[in-house]
Amino acid sequence: MLCLLKFTPLFLVVAVCHGWLFGDLFEKQKELDEISLWPLPQKYQSSAVAFKLSAASFQIVHAKQSTAGPSCSLLENAFRRYFEYMFGELKRQEKSRKKAFDSDLSELQVWITSADPECDGYPSLRTDESYSLSVDETSAVLKAANVWGALRGLETFSQLVYEDDYGVRNINKTDISDFPRFAHRGILLDSSRHFLPLKVILANLEAMAMNKFNVFHWHIVDDPSFPFMSRTFPELSQKGAYHPFTHVYTPSDVKMVIEFARMRGIRVVAEFDTPGHTQSWGNGIKDLLTPCYSGSSPSGSFGPVNPILNSSYEFMAQLFKEISTVFPDAYIHLGGDEVDFSCWKSNPDIQKFMNQQGFGTDYSKLESFYIQRLLDIVAATKKGYMVWQEVFDNGVKLKDDTVVEVWKGNDMKEELQNVTGAGFTTILSAPWYLDYISYGQDWQRYYKVEPLDFTGTDAQKKLVIGGEACLWGEYVDATNLTPRLWPRASAVAERLWSDASVTDVGNAYTRLAQHRCRMVRRGIPAEPLFVGHCRHEYKGL
Amino acid sequence: MLCLLKFTPLFLVVAVCHGWLFGDLFEKQKELDEISLWPLPQKYQSSAVAFKLSAASFQIVHAKQSTAGPSCSLLENAFRRYFEYMFGELKRQEKSRKKAFDSDLSELQVWITSADPECDGYPSLRTDESYSLSVDETSAVLKAANVWGALRGLETFSQLVYEDDYGVRNINKTDISDFPRFAHRGILLDSSRHFLPLKVILANLEAMAMNKFNVFHWHIVDDPSFPFMSRTFPELSQKGAYHPFTHVYTPSDVKMVIEFARMRGIRVVAEFDTPGHTQSWGNGIKDLLTPCYSGSSPSGSFGPVNPILNSSYEFMAQLFKEISTVFPDAYIHLGGDEVDFSCWKSNPDIQKFMNQQGFGTDYSKLESFYIQRLLDIVAATKKGYMVWQEVFDNGVKLKDDTVVEVWKGNDMKEELQNVTGAGFTTILSAPWYLDYISYGQDWQRYYKVEPLDFTGTDAQKKLVIGGEACLWGEYVDATNLTPRLWPRASAVAERLWSDASVTDVGNAYTRLAQHRCRMVRRGIPAEPLFVGHCRHEYKGL
Repeated sequence: MLCLLKFTPLFLVVAVCHGWLFGDLFEKQKELDEISLWPLPQKYQSSAVAFKLSAASFQIVHAKQSTAGPSCSLLENAFRRYFEYMFGELKRQEKSRKKAFDSDLSELQVWITSADPECDGYPSLRTDESYSLSVDETSAVLKAANVWGALRGLETFSQLVYEDDYGVRNINKTDISDFPRFAHRGILLDSSRHFLPLKVILANLEAMAMNKFNVFHWHIVDDPSFPFMSRTFPELSQKGAYHPFTHVYTPSDVKMVIEFARMRGIRVVAEFDTPGHTQSWGNGIKDLLTPCYSGSSPSGSFGPVNPILNSSYEFMAQLFKEISTVFPDAYIHLGGDEVDFSCWKSNPDIQKFMNQQGFGTDYSKLESFYIQRLLDIVAATKKGYMVWQEVFDNGVKLKDDTVVEVWKGNDMKEELQNVTGAGFTTILSAPWYLDYISYGQDWQRYYKVEPLDFTGTDAQKKLVIGGEACLWGEYVDATNLTPRLWPRASAVAERLWSDASVTDVGNAYTRLAQHRCRMVRRGIPAEPLFVGHCRHEYKGL
Repeated sequence: MLCLLKFTPLFLVVAVCHGWLFGDLFEKQKELDEISLWPLPQKYQSSAVAFKLSAASFQIVHAKQSTAGPSCSLLENAFRRYFEYMFGELKRQEKSRKKAFDSDLSELQVWITSADPECDGYPSLRTDESYSLSVDETSAVLKAANVWGALRGLETFSQLVYEDDYGVRNINKTDISDFPRFAHRGILLDSSRHFLPLKVILANLEAMAMNKFNVFHWHIVDDPSFPFMSRTFPELSQKGAYHPFTHVYTPSDVKMVIEFARMRGIRVVAEFDTPGHTQSWGNGIKDLLTPCYSGSSPSGSFGPVNPILNSSYEFMAQLFKEISTVFPDAYIHLGGDEVDFSCWKSNPDIQKFMNQQGFGTDYSKLESFYIQRLLDIVAATKKGYMVWQEVFDNGVKLKDDTVVEVWKGNDMKEELQNVTGAGFTTILSAPWYLDYISYGQDWQRYYKVEPLDFTGTDAQKKLVIGGEACLWGEYVDATNLTPRLWPRASAVAERLWSDASVTDVGNAYTRLAQHRCRMVRRGIPAEPLFVGHCRHEYKGL
């Protein structure tokens, strides 16, 4: 019996179907890792008719009409990955491909419709991630314009597959039409305050794909360490990393991160934050940082990048030239947050420069002077840039396509109003600083945020292109990062993907508890929401 | 040159030697996993004279005068374990036992002095854990009355060994005389709110030994699930566990935990909390719990153990008889906390019983009635018992050797005063509920607690025999328990072991940061204290 509904706003479909599906069909199945979709698709209808999937015969294939075929390694990899997720230890039997039963689902056809499937491309801010998925008698069809939508649809398909009490994989008759509400759905990780081994970054990219995140904001360097190995300035990591061999990202490490992310439809936006947050840069590059003064003589400590020396800009031009080739994404994050003026104020050369430029004692003008020149340098590399909100607040002239990241919790709504009022695109991270932990279910607080809840025109709201969950690195490293991030970041994932009307915390709890068990089963140590258990508990420590 | 000091209170030794040791000798070594002792020994002197340890020839041996020998498998196991910790991947070469150089330390002699080394015994509340350790030319001597003190000394010895820049293991000339300030130093883990796989429990026992904890308070069952598999009442876990096969502790699992703990000098005190916190018990045992009423008819829900039925006490007698044989420790924890009276109040049979007994409407009298009978049942098994503070607060008559656990944060000092004033031994857990997390370095808060800071006579203070760090299970399971517990619990470890004068948070930070890197290197995912790195980062996720 099909729970027939037109494609109405999703909360209606859920209201009508949900109780029936779970209340009737699965009444006796109390295990938590049954069917559950996260983030919830935009349009979704399902029925109680179930099909079996045989590990011996089920396959994911390219549809005949698809513009992508076996040469599309991105899809081939994804097929294998999702087959593993769905069947796990049940291995496909090579020799005897058993005949499927009548009620079996024999295959999932993946149908790419665009002339260019983008198999070898990179996702971008403008990528179309929409897809449709239909599961019916004998076969299922996943249709998407390009590989990026197909990746999202494969994740959804794998989430529809559930295991019955006999270990048999099932999927219900389903129709889904889905697309993200926001184009930029990011996770910020900080590899400077603690070095994050490659393995940790890759595992979290896996988890991001399971939650349909599409941007890895890599806050790669900062005050404490400079783990990025530059070919142009190898001394940056030789002198600035915690250790020049064991605590660095080599060019091939970076390539691997970017490729691993690409295979999952995830952009890698690297952040090289200046002029503040650069203490570790100074270890390798002489005269890059401003010498601080104690009275009339240098104190031996250093402040932000020295903005009055031409050598600073020559260095930045060379470094960002390299960065712009290493990272294929159209955007680089230039930071620009939290510049401490005290060192600049102490330095007589800086004071002289301030006078010459007519800046008086307004050091934000000096900051803007630096940023302005840096933006011109980066613009010359043909890259777009993202900046933290201070750069906008200080009135720096920005390119039209600049993305301004709003991170300050106070006056967040006013800031969104101002940034979009000035015509800039913006992303929101202020409510989603996941490094701030507290007792209890703080995911609900993240979940309840409505990013467009500020005063502004429709045009202004459209300029909010998404958000980011930020896990700053002061208190996390390989030992605790992953369980601290998941499933708390999953709350942000649904907020940024699903329809604005999807706000029922009770329903979200049920699905998210199941989704976290699914992540655990896939090897991600996502922490529990509350009291309970997973059918398959985490095997590690 | 030896930093000669008489055995004076430790903070003096530290004040004089510490700066010199670290400031002079190791000036150029900035790595964080150099020598560091945690918890700090009672008496400690060290010198700059260093000896090398060769993985090929160094050995831990029984001293000739020792009452323990190769047949003492507890020590043999410990020797192997600490050899591994010290030399890790550097394997001992079997064939060519190289001649030691003059400045080598060739062996550690372990000298047990008591007639009974207690190789096959269990640690107890009265166990002597003291030891002395002397490291000098060619050999080191670890002297202890029994194996329990030897285990503590082996941990200390292993912490003295450090790796230089060439990977060579070194140890400095050292004299240590050490003993714990408190006899009961526990960790509470809760395997009911989330099931904890055996692997997780064992790993945390390992970490406990690294921190000289000596009691595993196993809060094994509670409302949400009953994972303890009883031979007498198998239906308890069959019906009360999250899953009767995958989420239970079989008798052999429990044996393994006890033996694994014993090998590390750790007591296993099991808690079977009644009459509240027993919802899961009711699934398997008919009529055990009080039926709650809604008006004049049963509501279908159940409250605490039914205290008016003889069958309840017959059941408890049988169950605790089994428990008393399964767990060798002299103490069982009987819980007795947070009894909710609302269900008892709703039940007409209970009301009638209250009238018959002349309890009026004071339900704490009914609670005491139950507990009193339970205590008599348990006393008959020859076990001592521990209880949560409510049992004392409600005026239940307790055996003289009862241990009262103070857990309520409000009026903690008053409670300590009252409990010890009544002549009962007590342990403190109120300030150390590690399930309450917050942003930043909360370990400092745990560290700053002084357990004896309450009004009372010297005799009263002596009744405070220790404390426990409690990690209740609402928000932790295999995915996040270990990094959430360590090194936060390490702060409690030092407070309970070291002298009361050891309170310098800055010094503790330095040592604890190194100690946590040591735990990481030994495979425990202990989370970072703050920004920084370990020479060897965690290899897992």
